[in-house]
Amino acid sequence: MKLYSYFRSSAAWRVRIALNLKKLPYDCVPVHLLRDGGEQFSDTYRSLNHDAVVPTLVDDGNVLQQSLAIIEYLDETHPQPPLLPASPGDRAFVRGIALQLACEIHPLNNLRVLKYLKRTVGAGDDARNAWYAHWISSGFTALDAHLAASRRSGAFCFGDAPTLADTCLIPQVFNADRFNVDTSGFPTIRRIYDHAMQLPAFAQAAPGAQPDAE
Amino acid sequence: MKLYSYFRSSAAWRVRIALNLKKLPYDCVPVHLLRDGGEQFSDTYRSLNHDAVVPTLVDDGNVLQQSLAIIEYLDETHPQPPLLPASPGDRAFVRGIALQLACEIHPLNNLRVLKYLKRTVGAGDDARNAWYAHWISSGFTALDAHLAASRRSGAFCFGDAPTLADTCLIPQVFNADRFNVDTSGFPTIRRIYDHAMQLPAFAQAAPGAQPDAE
Repeated sequence: MKLYSYFRSSAAWRVRIALNLKKLPYDCVPVHLLRDGGEQFSDTYRSLNHDAVVPTLVDDGNVLQQSLAIIEYLDETHPQPPLLPASPGDRAFVRGIALQLACEIHPLNNLRVLKYLKRTVGAGDDARNAWYAHWISSGFTALDAHLAASRRSGAFCFGDAPTLADTCLIPQVFNADRFNVDTSGFPTIRRIYDHAMQLPAFAQAAPGAQPDAE
Repeated sequence: MKLYSYFRSSAAWRVRIALNLKKLPYDCVPVHLLRDGGEQFSDTYRSLNHDAVVPTLVDDGNVLQQSLAIIEYLDETHPQPPLLPASPGDRAFVRGIALQLACEIHPLNNLRVLKYLKRTVGAGDDARNAWYAHWISSGFTALDAHLAASRRSGAFCFGDAPTLADTCLIPQVFNADRFNVDTSGFPTIRRIYDHAMQLPAFAQAAPGAQPDAE
C-alpha cells in the first residue's frame, strides 16, 4: 500500500492512525502542500486525486480518495481490530462523530479556505485566527456535550477501544492546540485525547513522527 | 421513523432520497432554521442533536445525527435496494464522491458559515456570492473530471442505479442552480442530475415537495 500524505494534514493523520491500529505496513509518499505553490496541484498528483487534496491511498489497483472512505475500506479489507462496532445503531453513533468532525469543523479550517479568506475576502490575521477558533469551539462544545451525555462513550469516543471517531478527533484536538485554541472547557474531549496519545498507533502517526516532518 | 428536517436543507434532502429509494415510510418533523432565530437552537432539539443541525433520524430508540451516517444506517438495516456496491474498492469510490461533496463543498456554503461571513468577517453580498460559487465551482471541476475519467460511473455516479453518492450530488446541483452558479462546464454532473430528477425518489424529496415548503 502507498499513502500519499503530508505530515501536517489531519486527514492524512486519520488514515495513518487506522493503518497503525491495523498494523498494516505502507509506503509513505510525501506531498508537500506548500512547496512550489503546492505539490498537490501537479498533473501527476491530480491524476490520482482530482481534488488535489491529501490523502490518497493506492492499494491493489484501487486509487482511493477521502480519508473516511479510505478508513472504511481498510476496515472492510482488514477487519481486525475493527474500527466500527457491530450494531447499526452503534455504527451510526461512531460515524456521526467522525462526520461531525470531518464535515462541521475541519473543512472550514483547511489550508485552502484560510488562503481564500486572506487573499480574496481580505481577512487579516486576527479575523482568520478568530475564524479558526470559532469553528473548533462551536464544534467541540456540541461534541463534548454529546460524548458526556452518551452511555456509549468510554475511554474512547465509543467504549474503551479506538474507532473511526477517534481517528478524526485526535488530529482535530492537536490542531486546536497548535493554534492556541482554548480547549479547557471540553473535559471529555481532552480526556480522550490524552488517553489516545499514550498509544503508539496515534503518537507514531502524529505530524512530528512523519518522514516529511519539518 | 421520525425525520427532523428542513425543506431547504440539502443534508436532510440526502436522507429523504435514501428513505424514498428504500420505500420507507417516515414522519417528517419540520425544524425551521430561520424562524424565531432558528428552531434548531431550542433546548428540545438540541437534546436530540447537540450540534443544532438537521437532519436527525429517530428510529427504534436510536437518535442518529449526520446525514451520511444515517444513510449508512438505513442501508445496513434495510439493505434493499442497496445504496453502496458490494466490493470494498467500489464502496470506497462511492463513499469518496459522497464525502467530497459533504466535506469539500457543502460545509463551506452552510447557512451558519454565510451568517458568520456576513456578521463577523463583514463580507458583503458580492463577496458572499463569490465565496458560494467558488467552492461549488472548484469542487465540481474536480468531481466532473473524476466521474468522466472513471470506468465506474454510468447513468449515475456509480453504474446505472442510484447510490449514496447521488443522494449527495443532486441536492448540491440544485443549490448551485438556486444561487445561479454556472454549471454548464460540468456535463457529466448535469447529465446525472437531469437523469436522477426523473425519478420520483429524488423529485419527491426535493425542497418544493416538502410539507414545510414555502
